[in-house]
Amino acid sequence: MTEKVVIIGGGAAGPKVAAKLRREKSDIQIDLYTQENIISYSACGLPYFIENIIQHSETLIIRTPEDFRKQGINIHLNQQCSGINTKEETVSLLDLISGNKYEVKYDILVIATGAVPIIPNIVNINLKNIFTLRTIEDGIKIKEKMLTSQKVVLLGGGYISIELMEAFVHNNLQVTLLERDKQILKMFDEDFAQRITDYIIGRNPGQVSILTDEEVIAFQGNENNEVKKVITRSGKEIETDFVVLGTGVRPNTDFILDSDIKLGIKNSIKVDKTLKTSKNGIYAVGDCTDNFNLVTNRYTWVPMGSTANKEGRCAAINIAGGECLFEGILNSTITKYFDFTISIIGISYKEAIEFGFKPEYAIVTKRDKAGYMPNSGTMTLKLIADKNTHTILGIQGIGEGDVNKRINTVIPAILSKTKLESFMNLDLPYSPPYSPAIDPVLNAAQIIYQKING
Amino acid sequence: MTEKVVIIGGGAAGPKVAAKLRREKSDIQIDLYTQENIISYSACGLPYFIENIIQHSETLIIRTPEDFRKQGINIHLNQQCSGINTKEETVSLLDLISGNKYEVKYDILVIATGAVPIIPNIVNINLKNIFTLRTIEDGIKIKEKMLTSQKVVLLGGGYISIELMEAFVHNNLQVTLLERDKQILKMFDEDFAQRITDYIIGRNPGQVSILTDEEVIAFQGNENNEVKKVITRSGKEIETDFVVLGTGVRPNTDFILDSDIKLGIKNSIKVDKTLKTSKNGIYAVGDCTDNFNLVTNRYTWVPMGSTANKEGRCAAINIAGGECLFEGILNSTITKYFDFTISIIGISYKEAIEFGFKPEYAIVTKRDKAGYMPNSGTMTLKLIADKNTHTILGIQGIGEGDVNKRINTVIPAILSKTKLESFMNLDLPYSPPYSPAIDPVLNAAQIIYQKING
Repeated sequence: MTEKVVIIGGGAAGPKVAAKLRREKSDIQIDLYTQENIISYSACGLPYFIENIIQHSETLIIRTPEDFRKQGINIHLNQQCSGINTKEETVSLLDLISGNKYEVKYDILVIATGAVPIIPNIVNINLKNIFTLRTIEDGIKIKEKMLTSQKVVLLGGGYISIELMEAFVHNNLQVTLLERDKQILKMFDEDFAQRITDYIIGRNPGQVSILTDEEVIAFQGNENNEVKKVITRSGKEIETDFVVLGTGVRPNTDFILDSDIKLGIKNSIKVDKTLKTSKNGIYAVGDCTDNFNLVTNRYTWVPMGSTANKEGRCAAINIAGGECLFEGILNSTITKYFDFTISIIGISYKEAIEFGFKPEYAIVTKRDKAGYMPNSGTMTLKLIADKNTHTILGIQGIGEGDVNKRINTVIPAILSKTKLESFMNLDLPYSPPYSPAIDPVLNAAQIIYQKING
Repeated sequence: MTEKVVIIGGGAAGPKVAAKLRREKSDIQIDLYTQENIISYSACGLPYFIENIIQHSETLIIRTPEDFRKQGINIHLNQQCSGINTKEETVSLLDLISGNKYEVKYDILVIATGAVPIIPNIVNINLKNIFTLRTIEDGIKIKEKMLTSQKVVLLGGGYISIELMEAFVHNNLQVTLLERDKQILKMFDEDFAQRITDYIIGRNPGQVSILTDEEVIAFQGNENNEVKKVITRSGKEIETDFVVLGTGVRPNTDFILDSDIKLGIKNSIKVDKTLKTSKNGIYAVGDCTDNFNLVTNRYTWVPMGSTANKEGRCAAINIAGGECLFEGILNSTITKYFDFTISIIGISYKEAIEFGFKPEYAIVTKRDKAGYMPNSGTMTLKLIADKNTHTILGIQGIGEGDVNKRINTVIPAILSKTKLESFMNLDLPYSPPYSPAIDPVLNAAQIIYQKING
């Protein structure tokens, strides 16, 4: 009998499992169910579609249902999973078009249901033109509204809000970002969050406001129930044409809360390094799973498209009988605000203290190329290392210079717990168009090492 | 009594020792002797000065003699070292202006005499307008000649020739590169050398020739003894206005060949990880020293400005009583041909076989950003790993995409002997403007791992 693999979820991870599994094994039945009317697209590209750097939403589609069908993968659109019966090995599904409910049997089940936006408890949250951004449909609605608007309010100071701010600034809107916390981009140390804020404000003075310590308590609408005003606890009233909620996401796992599949942090699904859940024959991949942080050695939940893709690939190899271990993550994130790169890897200084390390840090602001080369850009790096072990715990990098290269240079060193004394003399390739003779990231390591060694 | 440190050599490494040593220790006498009339400049920037991306040669100067004097460092220009007496602890010097010879006593000696061009044994090599490029003076002469010339011949297919080719193409010269070997850029595998050649030729068809297997046997001059023709063993006669010899360099150590300071490969100076030579109280840094290759675990000689700077800094710390170990190099090199990056780290596939590894490789050609982002560039990576240990041995990268980031991502993994199975799922930060969801360098690792695991 042909083995039947059922995949629930059509974002990044689910389709990745399907495609890779088919390449690994031709004699297997693969059925993918998704509640959307589209599959396999890059949600991370939505801000650039809204900005209109990418003109058509179809550009974000990686593979169409037809592409999958050609590979012998059955795609079922508009089918929502409402529960899993692990004893009967069945999935309960709801056809969103016909309203029919039915059960599907599986031999192997892969849960890849992703994450959903958190809707904050604010008065009049149901007014029109208050959006979240998660699906292509969301992106199309926001873009349409943006094109006829002058003013927008963004709630929450995470990466999505920064990326949407670029989109809206680029399209000449007046943008206000409201953050409940005392800083935007909570994963960064406060000094770096401030530098980022200063850059964003300084780039378009008058067009952009970033207000921290501002909790939104109510929206006000017009006679058509369209949002027109945002009201904060401190009494500010901000006029707007629309609102985007960037107030976080949570694992999309409500449908298995009462199952016997073990959940972890924030109700994400607990998986081992092979991406198996606590139940035999059930895998989970992507934004709905928990993550093991290789710096802190603790479980965390960091939904990322890159992790989803790697987990999907890995799970497919394991389902096909191969061996792939997904060892964990380093909380690696990056975003762009026009030419300004914003990135953090590992843990911040404040987190290092919280987690019981004895951190030391160095901040360097340097040009990214030999100083005499034209078009060199400035960047600021904050490297954090542990005084006891001399290992690197994290790096924060911002600036118009090539931050990403420096960040990536540190990542394998964090993974392998390379000591500062080895890292600071690392043989990075040098030529004036690419870096100074001693790369800034090595300068930072040298400075910490000298601080630690007194 | 104040300790007296004598430094010989004024390129990159010597001045670095002086400056860092002064910062570490204020109560020490530092005397630096150089045979040039200038110190502390970036020789690696000379091709960009010739190209006229940098207009003035002074731009390449990092610190002037006056800067050093202000720090209490005595700079002695135009003073050539002719020998070292390790028993008497003296250095023999020749004043190139007055012709006077004299001896200088040292407590600590640092040899930083760099490398000198190899002049090939070719008929009429002494004709006018046959240049080497090592010093600022060389650069000024070549640039002057270029500005009134139409045709140039480059001998040797190393990085310097590639960089000068860009300079000359940019200045509308007809360029012919002649390489004795069957490929340019010998450190690369043949397939990559061919891809690089194809790119260079294809970019400016008709303006550039790259001829391999072509040994130059003679030059011909005019009545003014100016070179006018280059003649190869195969019988080719190439008209030219001038010639640049990119036929390699050797350690500048002739003056100590008969001393008791131990020499290593190619007569480079043997140093330990603290940069000490075989003689107590004598250090050596920069292009005149040997290097320990951390991939092959053998001594090699790879003169690089980045290594010179790191060694200089490290030696200064050790001289000042601190501790800095320079563990070795990874043969990391990079260069640019217009927008095309050319880089290799570790060892090539052919070298891996020569050194007794059991190599496997993967070649990937991918876009450097999410495929739907504008301005993404293509690049080709060749990753090499050892079948027995699953460790990465090297990577070659070329293309208009961001090769350098991928190269740098591999370097710490080579250093720490990270296994492919860990590296291939490395948590690199992802956002569409920076990379595809799974970075191409991880694709390459995944492919090798699957090849090895069957």
